[in-house]
Amino acid sequence: MNKEVLDGLFRPKSVAVIGASATPGKIGYSVVEALNNGKYEGPIYPINLKADEILGHKAYPSILDLTGKVDLAVITVPAKFVLGSVEECGKAKVKGISIITSGFGEIGDHETENAIVETAHRYGMRVLGPNIIGSLSNSDKLNASFAPTLPLPGDASLISQSGALLIALDAGTYLRGVGFDKLFSLGNMADVDFSDIIEWLDQDERTKCISLYIEGLKDGRRFVDVCKKASKPIIALKSGVSAHGAAAAASHTGSLAGAAKVYGAAFEQAGIIQAQDLNNLFDLTQAFELQPPMKGDHLLIVTNGGGVGVLATDAAERYGIPLEFCPADLQAEMKNYMPEFGSAKNPVDITGGAGLEGYKKCIAFGLQQDWVDGLAVLYCETAMTNPMEIAQGILEAVHQAEENEASKGKPVAVSFVGGEHTAEAMRYLIDHGIPTYDDPARAVNVLGGLRQYARLQEAKANSKNEDGFKADKQAALAIIQAAREDGRDALTEIEAKDVFRAYGLDVTSTRLAKTEDEAVALANKVGYPIVMKIVSPDILHKSDASGVKVNIKDDASTREWFNKIIANAKAYKADANIHGVAIQEMAPLGSEVILGSINDAAFGPTVMFGLGGIFVEVLKDVTFAVTPVSKQQALKMQSDIRGAKILDGARGEKPRDKEAMAITIARYSHMILDLQDEIKESDANPVMVYEDGSGLKVVDARIILKKK
Amino acid sequence: MNKEVLDGLFRPKSVAVIGASATPGKIGYSVVEALNNGKYEGPIYPINLKADEILGHKAYPSILDLTGKVDLAVITVPAKFVLGSVEECGKAKVKGISIITSGFGEIGDHETENAIVETAHRYGMRVLGPNIIGSLSNSDKLNASFAPTLPLPGDASLISQSGALLIALDAGTYLRGVGFDKLFSLGNMADVDFSDIIEWLDQDERTKCISLYIEGLKDGRRFVDVCKKASKPIIALKSGVSAHGAAAAASHTGSLAGAAKVYGAAFEQAGIIQAQDLNNLFDLTQAFELQPPMKGDHLLIVTNGGGVGVLATDAAERYGIPLEFCPADLQAEMKNYMPEFGSAKNPVDITGGAGLEGYKKCIAFGLQQDWVDGLAVLYCETAMTNPMEIAQGILEAVHQAEENEASKGKPVAVSFVGGEHTAEAMRYLIDHGIPTYDDPARAVNVLGGLRQYARLQEAKANSKNEDGFKADKQAALAIIQAAREDGRDALTEIEAKDVFRAYGLDVTSTRLAKTEDEAVALANKVGYPIVMKIVSPDILHKSDASGVKVNIKDDASTREWFNKIIANAKAYKADANIHGVAIQEMAPLGSEVILGSINDAAFGPTVMFGLGGIFVEVLKDVTFAVTPVSKQQALKMQSDIRGAKILDGARGEKPRDKEAMAITIARYSHMILDLQDEIKESDANPVMVYEDGSGLKVVDARIILKKK
Repeated sequence: MNKEVLDGLFRPKSVAVIGASATPGKIGYSVVEALNNGKYEGPIYPINLKADEILGHKAYPSILDLTGKVDLAVITVPAKFVLGSVEECGKAKVKGISIITSGFGEIGDHETENAIVETAHRYGMRVLGPNIIGSLSNSDKLNASFAPTLPLPGDASLISQSGALLIALDAGTYLRGVGFDKLFSLGNMADVDFSDIIEWLDQDERTKCISLYIEGLKDGRRFVDVCKKASKPIIALKSGVSAHGAAAAASHTGSLAGAAKVYGAAFEQAGIIQAQDLNNLFDLTQAFELQPPMKGDHLLIVTNGGGVGVLATDAAERYGIPLEFCPADLQAEMKNYMPEFGSAKNPVDITGGAGLEGYKKCIAFGLQQDWVDGLAVLYCETAMTNPMEIAQGILEAVHQAEENEASKGKPVAVSFVGGEHTAEAMRYLIDHGIPTYDDPARAVNVLGGLRQYARLQEAKANSKNEDGFKADKQAALAIIQAAREDGRDALTEIEAKDVFRAYGLDVTSTRLAKTEDEAVALANKVGYPIVMKIVSPDILHKSDASGVKVNIKDDASTREWFNKIIANAKAYKADANIHGVAIQEMAPLGSEVILGSINDAAFGPTVMFGLGGIFVEVLKDVTFAVTPVSKQQALKMQSDIRGAKILDGARGEKPRDKEAMAITIARYSHMILDLQDEIKESDANPVMVYEDGSGLKVVDARIILKKK
Repeated sequence: MNKEVLDGLFRPKSVAVIGASATPGKIGYSVVEALNNGKYEGPIYPINLKADEILGHKAYPSILDLTGKVDLAVITVPAKFVLGSVEECGKAKVKGISIITSGFGEIGDHETENAIVETAHRYGMRVLGPNIIGSLSNSDKLNASFAPTLPLPGDASLISQSGALLIALDAGTYLRGVGFDKLFSLGNMADVDFSDIIEWLDQDERTKCISLYIEGLKDGRRFVDVCKKASKPIIALKSGVSAHGAAAAASHTGSLAGAAKVYGAAFEQAGIIQAQDLNNLFDLTQAFELQPPMKGDHLLIVTNGGGVGVLATDAAERYGIPLEFCPADLQAEMKNYMPEFGSAKNPVDITGGAGLEGYKKCIAFGLQQDWVDGLAVLYCETAMTNPMEIAQGILEAVHQAEENEASKGKPVAVSFVGGEHTAEAMRYLIDHGIPTYDDPARAVNVLGGLRQYARLQEAKANSKNEDGFKADKQAALAIIQAAREDGRDALTEIEAKDVFRAYGLDVTSTRLAKTEDEAVALANKVGYPIVMKIVSPDILHKSDASGVKVNIKDDASTREWFNKIIANAKAYKADANIHGVAIQEMAPLGSEVILGSINDAAFGPTVMFGLGGIFVEVLKDVTFAVTPVSKQQALKMQSDIRGAKILDGARGEKPRDKEAMAITIARYSHMILDLQDEIKESDANPVMVYEDGSGLKVVDARIILKKK
């Protein structure tokens, strides 16, 4: 990231509007008007061939006529003039270009779009857009866009891939009371993309959290890296997660893949909180702006109504922070703050009778308890209470608690249900730093998000890959090269296993016997019982060719089956190129799992993990992780599948060796990442996983090469 | 239902307030004030020992002093005086009593509560409460509660088991723009419950749909019956669906049960739409008030922003109405209504450039197409459009379309994203009958609800039990009686199968052999191969006692194993009461499924269905249905499990006989309902289901009796 250039693009000290217009209704007019209305304090240079002055600013025929320095040039001229304008900007030593004009990549003209970026880069400039609304920054009083107003001020920044949505959300910040410092429209992402802006925002002192509206990523791998490294919370709403919406994306992947699942996995690996819909994006943004992450699992709910208390309890389970009863000493103390028929268990129901004092005491006391990691305060408007007084009381109690060191760093979210007076009280709380919602489920949802963020941060901290194994990439490449020289895109099982072995995977020993005598010698080396399989690049489905025999126990049978298998193969396909017969160690039965790889359109090499049999075939019960996968992540993949209990030892069996499986997943992920230029797809199917401590065996391996 | 009495309770022509007070802050004051503020037009009689007049109404020392007739008596006196007041009301020929006073069943005093109801019933009165807010009716200008105001007028009615929530929601109707005609607080439901009010509301001409907030039901079976019969849409928010929230409920059921799942199943059978949270309850209520059900699966989305279009597409899949592309002729026509770069596929993206005319043409045209069953219109506020003009245009187009017969009966929902002007436009649409939301996901969610309602109505119409089988209840009772006389609560397998057979279930033939010779004779009758099993009420786990042998093929082996099994049983438990050995037909292998029953605390006898093996044991992949289960519902249970594909014929196998399974489920449900006074729990495990057309076999049956 060239920070100085991006500073010029996003926090310019001067702005030129190329295509500025004096005609209302034109975008070149709207942009200058927006800059004026935002009260931008730097010089504004309208560029217009004919005008002398536009909206109070002296106009120039060309950016090259300017004597002053220009940080940002906003381009609104028709598409055919944009490339020329960019060239002129370069000559004028502009730092950043924001191209509002549309009519490039989105209608198929990638050539001009590429030329624009190349030209800009030649001059050291960066390009936002084309096909955008612009960018806005409250702290710079900069509205370099055709959105009418700057957003409600706040501590979050939003990057949106949809321009229409950005304008609508901008207006919505006032309605919803959720403030932003900066808004960015990404448009075609010809140059500057999510990763660039996230990296830059991570260093922006006015941004506390980063919100994203994503339709699709171009370089998902870099995106994951940048987000992983970011020190600020990132919340993303990803659209196109449905089958119909993601139809295009899905065609790149297998039927098991589902781009939405890969995005979900990548977001989790990157530490991103995924929003469910627009309201949820706003809700989470508000919470992350105003509150710290939730560092433990204990949520305390204080309510004046049993009904909303139970609804919040349901939501707590739904959003990953299931409620527990308070310890006895907490219950005993809080019981003093409420009428006889109240409940201090959790939800703490102070009842309609407790009023202001009950809230204040339970909140102040609760937040100071070590046991409490986060607090939801719920209020139902009643005939006897004044919502604003309750709001003020809640705020007072939270501030009072914060004087105590033990209360610090614990998130609070509030839900008020009621009428107009309640709405005013809600706004009061939001304005004073307490995220407040009109439904208990929403308040608990954001606390779930704050908890998830803390969990993902922990997982990131633990995700160092501690595996000391050194892979032998050269050996793997040599095997691949040999197959290519043989004119093949599919490795034989023996070759595939050798590649797997070079990356430290525990494959069953499989050696090629070309003659009966070799077969017997190898069988004795491997040790009976053995499995014998035909080895032929022309026979991919060995069973169909009667080319597999398991559980062979002696030399005589080995000889007999060597000949039978060869004969069967010839009968199956007369002209098959037969390498010989594989002599393979027979792995004992264990829990069958499957490892596979897909090349995701956005994230590149991606590992798929699932249990074998019906779990994969019927239930599609698989998890994904973008490579490289750490051992820690690989453990989580195993617990994320629905059939996770199988590996924990279901039906009276002992737990499986999830540690060995995690190392295997990590090494496999390293392999498909390291060899991504060579391997198109691969799998280990089945892998037999044994009891804890007894490891595993990759029984069959398959590698298909990329065509070169 | 005694309609006249409930009319008196809910739409009284005169109201007495027993415990009326002239002191502000007292509930007896608030109720009279509320009646005044609501502009109730009938006579109001404050009853107060000392006062002459309260808030403009002549007061009386006792209800017995009144000369006028009283329909409704609202009781607000302290708990200890309530029973006496009810007695007096009876003497005064009051029709209905609404007891606001708390301090009865909810604090453990069930005795007084029961006495109140008995007294009321003795006089032919019905009781709402105790421990309630009261009831409200806009069309009667009746606010017989201590909630300050009547709700925003509308066509829905709400019944809430939480009083605090009712007051808060009442105030919230103005804020949210969702109107209600009647509100009811249920409190302890000592007498009048959900079913009573739903039955009554179904005949109330001012109520178009019924919304419920439910914490728990007392008579779930009647509730299901009443809702099934209701002609109006019913929407329910059920709280306590989480493990923590439902801890108490769960203790009644097995680990597989989960009260939430049973509630979900019962709601579906009853045709009820389940809301996810408070906002969703309001959203759905608004939609059902204003729009018809969605009678087919084809949703059309018209949008001015691609982003919200994709978000709505995702939501459509999430809420059960996945999007499809429009037919080519529709696309071709709509392409004329938008700029070149718009899309008529679906979502129909008229783009920011199309403006008002694009919306109007696409909406009017779309609604008239047979292919279209429902419409979502999405709008993002832009710098170029006026939200109110767009709203007016949408309304105009919808009205225009309605002039055409083909457009009638199709629901429309709208989402507007933007600022203050947008909020005004949204309110305009709502006021003119178009449900409008601030997030595309919300608009699609309610369309999903309208679609689900139509589907459930269809299912209800098809749920007649067409099975002509006549069960032999007497035979079943005789078997049960014999076991009881034998001092047993557990039936033997043979007895259990005979009971199953009496209800038409296809069990494997199992006969008791007391001697070697009998064993051989029965084996020849059944036909080899057979299974032999120990029959002893003292040996429940037959395998542990080496009491089972499968696949016996001839007379000699039958003799040998008869003796071995008896010997094993004696070795296992010397004093076991051994009936003999069961000679059982050996069922071929099929897809294993399990049928079980639970006695749900709210809904009574309930059927559980699942696939055998890991599906039940590891994945807890089971569905429930409240008895009686129709064949149609039983088919749906089979498609609702996650492993449904197994029955459809996964992994290249042929489809299973789901028809036979459905009949079996229906008959089994009839059995556990018919014998609910006798059977505590039962199961059929496993049931082998064969290829379509080949039926099934119940291989093992178990019945445990209720203790008497």
